Amino acid sequence: MTKKSIYSKLYPLFYPKSIAVIGASEKPGSLGRAIMRNLLNIKFPGKIYPINIKGEKCFGLPMYRSILDVKDTIDLAVILVPASVVPKIMEDCSKKGVKTAIIISAGFSEVGEDGKKLEEEVHRIAQKGNVRVLGPNCLGIYNPRSKVDLIFNPPDRQQKPGPGDIAFLSQSGAFGAAILDFMAEEEIGISSFVSYGNAMDITESTLLQYFSEDPETSVITMYIEGIKNGRIFSEVAREVVTKKPIVVLKAGRTEAGAKAAKSHTGSLAGSDTIYDGVFRQLGIIRANSMLDLFTKAKALAYQPPAKGNRIAIVTNGGGVGVMAADAIELEGMQVASLTDSTINQLKNVLPPHASPYNPIDIIGDADYLRYKNATEIALRDPNVDALIILIIPQSPALDHKKLVEELVSVIKSQRKPVTVAIPGGKISKILSLEFEKHRIPTYKTPEDAVMAMKALVTYGTYLQKRQQHEN
Amino acid sequence: MTKKSIYSKLYPLFYPKSIAVIGASEKPGSLGRAIMRNLLNIKFPGKIYPINIKGEKCFGLPMYRSILDVKDTIDLAVILVPASVVPKIMEDCSKKGVKTAIIISAGFSEVGEDGKKLEEEVHRIAQKGNVRVLGPNCLGIYNPRSKVDLIFNPPDRQQKPGPGDIAFLSQSGAFGAAILDFMAEEEIGISSFVSYGNAMDITESTLLQYFSEDPETSVITMYIEGIKNGRIFSEVAREVVTKKPIVVLKAGRTEAGAKAAKSHTGSLAGSDTIYDGVFRQLGIIRANSMLDLFTKAKALAYQPPAKGNRIAIVTNGGGVGVMAADAIELEGMQVASLTDSTINQLKNVLPPHASPYNPIDIIGDADYLRYKNATEIALRDPNVDALIILIIPQSPALDHKKLVEELVSVIKSQRKPVTVAIPGGKISKILSLEFEKHRIPTYKTPEDAVMAMKALVTYGTYLQKRQQHEN
Repeated sequence: MTKKSIYSKLYPLFYPKSIAVIGASEKPGSLGRAIMRNLLNIKFPGKIYPINIKGEKCFGLPMYRSILDVKDTIDLAVILVPASVVPKIMEDCSKKGVKTAIIISAGFSEVGEDGKKLEEEVHRIAQKGNVRVLGPNCLGIYNPRSKVDLIFNPPDRQQKPGPGDIAFLSQSGAFGAAILDFMAEEEIGISSFVSYGNAMDITESTLLQYFSEDPETSVITMYIEGIKNGRIFSEVAREVVTKKPIVVLKAGRTEAGAKAAKSHTGSLAGSDTIYDGVFRQLGIIRANSMLDLFTKAKALAYQPPAKGNRIAIVTNGGGVGVMAADAIELEGMQVASLTDSTINQLKNVLPPHASPYNPIDIIGDADYLRYKNATEIALRDPNVDALIILIIPQSPALDHKKLVEELVSVIKSQRKPVTVAIPGGKISKILSLEFEKHRIPTYKTPEDAVMAMKALVTYGTYLQKRQQHEN
Repeated sequence: MTKKSIYSKLYPLFYPKSIAVIGASEKPGSLGRAIMRNLLNIKFPGKIYPINIKGEKCFGLPMYRSILDVKDTIDLAVILVPASVVPKIMEDCSKKGVKTAIIISAGFSEVGEDGKKLEEEVHRIAQKGNVRVLGPNCLGIYNPRSKVDLIFNPPDRQQKPGPGDIAFLSQSGAFGAAILDFMAEEEIGISSFVSYGNAMDITESTLLQYFSEDPETSVITMYIEGIKNGRIFSEVAREVVTKKPIVVLKAGRTEAGAKAAKSHTGSLAGSDTIYDGVFRQLGIIRANSMLDLFTKAKALAYQPPAKGNRIAIVTNGGGVGVMAADAIELEGMQVASLTDSTINQLKNVLPPHASPYNPIDIIGDADYLRYKNATEIALRDPNVDALIILIIPQSPALDHKKLVEELVSVIKSQRKPVTVAIPGGKISKILSLEFEKHRIPTYKTPEDAVMAMKALVTYGTYLQKRQQHEN
């Protein structure tokens, strides 16, 4: 199946005009109730058809005994009924010509041999009816634009991010929900969240193809424990990565982790050294931890890739400058050697005790103009591929509003990537959000700003090599 | 000088009954005004004597032309006047019998040869008069208990932490201020913050000795770029570390970082491999980054050291369990092999699809009782030295209030250390603070909970070796 047809095949999954909720209910504590309320609360703009053999109404909507009783075409069937009933339900979906389905129910291949057989049976029925299926044993989808929201945790303990351009695919459901909550709090926008569970039909590779064509997505992030089919994944990723960066958090890296992964998702985690090599070869950016995944994704979404690894640092705090220099070297990048012309220009605009070398230490009493000047000069240096700006925001000398205005204008007027670190508490968060409004990725620590830059350097270097290779 | 006498000598610096502010002023934008307002706003309970040759009153307090005009004894003189005047001021302080002084003013050894001579002159005068001096070129002290607060950043951009038992010594002033802001936001309490600048008289070693005797301090954290006198530091640290853990963030680890450190504090950063070896030998815990410093400090402050490195994991999310297992192994610890008896006990209290092996996956629908049972059983296992609890808090099945109550009671009834990770956003923070009220260190990611545990294992193992060696 071609990429284009995968995009149009899966489009109704992410942008359905009609949803049938099979197993809908008003019963307190039931999954059917939670999903119905989600769709009503978020004001899903399409048609909702609750299906249940019991009951006549569900939250004021007419209830259908079977999906075959619905007159309308169905873009998406959400299936919540017990595993044993799913084959029968899938028969109905096939008959009805449902375009896509999500099986949220558990009790399939993840529970052993019998479950595996049941899953295979459901798969056969779906294939026969040409229904593309997400799951089983998954949380499903959250898409803030189409308002498909199947994440059924109570709203007082589950925040969800607003629209953005990072897609997140998760092999683990619960972890995905925690990540959505985290993204909302950090105000990182999302294009779609997908928990794909056992990946019976739609796999991580299918989803990669979909998101490579999705105009709302600019970066694809993934949490995986194992890969369904390595050869297909490699082929797909190799193509997708030239269009959009892919950042992967691969768990099960160690012997202990791999054992845990096998017990969790049944994944054969495989040798981490092999994964590392394959990811590098495919140009996939690897995240080291849960936080690192979004540190890197934010940078890749907001900034252009770097053309080289020579990094300049502008800072009003000497200590954080030292920490950033350490992290740059530890991550295999270079603290750029500034040209003599740059050093002279910096000397002209900086006070005597500032340092015009790299890290450019504009010292504690720096105001917004000194930041502007140093940033402008550093970014013009031909020896500089990218810039990290460090701001100790507690300083009384800084007019925060003007600082954001001036730095944003300098950064936007050129093409080298920039990441920012603003250490601290409340004031740090407030100022960070101001920069991020302008898509300048901002972090709490110098180390995170460096890890973010590393992603831009890795991706940029990969793209250049690939281009050379293909010319 | 013995440790005891250092403690009593420096006591007036941290708990002064009277402070003279030399260079006090009402002039807008002046440092003298900022420091006076700080002491008045925080309601410093002792006497404040503003000293300035100009003016008769300062914020309603009588102004003195010289410290020699004050009748009272002076525990602490805070010196804000320009560098060139400091020798004269120090003469007065010596004559007056001032016990301790903080020279906040810059313009000494950090600016070159002339400044170095000036610093030496001031040092001679202070020694002659038996005045112990912090600085010059520093931010001074913040102590929430004695209400000595010299951190003069505007209150709307500088939060400060409440009383706690972590001391923080910083060679960098600006970074220290950012860290205070960070600690306040994270609700991590502090015993004292000290920015010691050029360390002319009171060095990091003097401060280590003071805090080893300070009853309010249980963990000592440090940000350093270089050490004043390696031999003395080693001697002191070797003794202090048997009483209280020391966590050090040493910057200038790489060639680029060392160059930056030399330009920042004039420190010769030295070979990182040597530092690493020395720290290990001295039982000093090393932090890898700004956040890691407090990740580790919190654990060491709140929990007992571990007796070994065999770690159990209890989780309601499979994915985070895999990540924790990976991190444990990557950090050189062991995912504990549970005894058969433990596995059987777990099987008795867990549902069929849960995993009674380690990571103990009590699965997504776990309620507080399942957490309690699993935690209790895991902690009783003789093969388990310590426990990491992972909680996906978005789950509708968890009664958060009861969860905290029950887990706190289980953890407090035994002596193995526990760290917790609660991934997510707002709900994660709320629940974390509940655990931390009971001194159970709680983090946002499985990786951080593991890094925290690593500190407890490293410290515990060191103490055991040291004890064996000394018996």
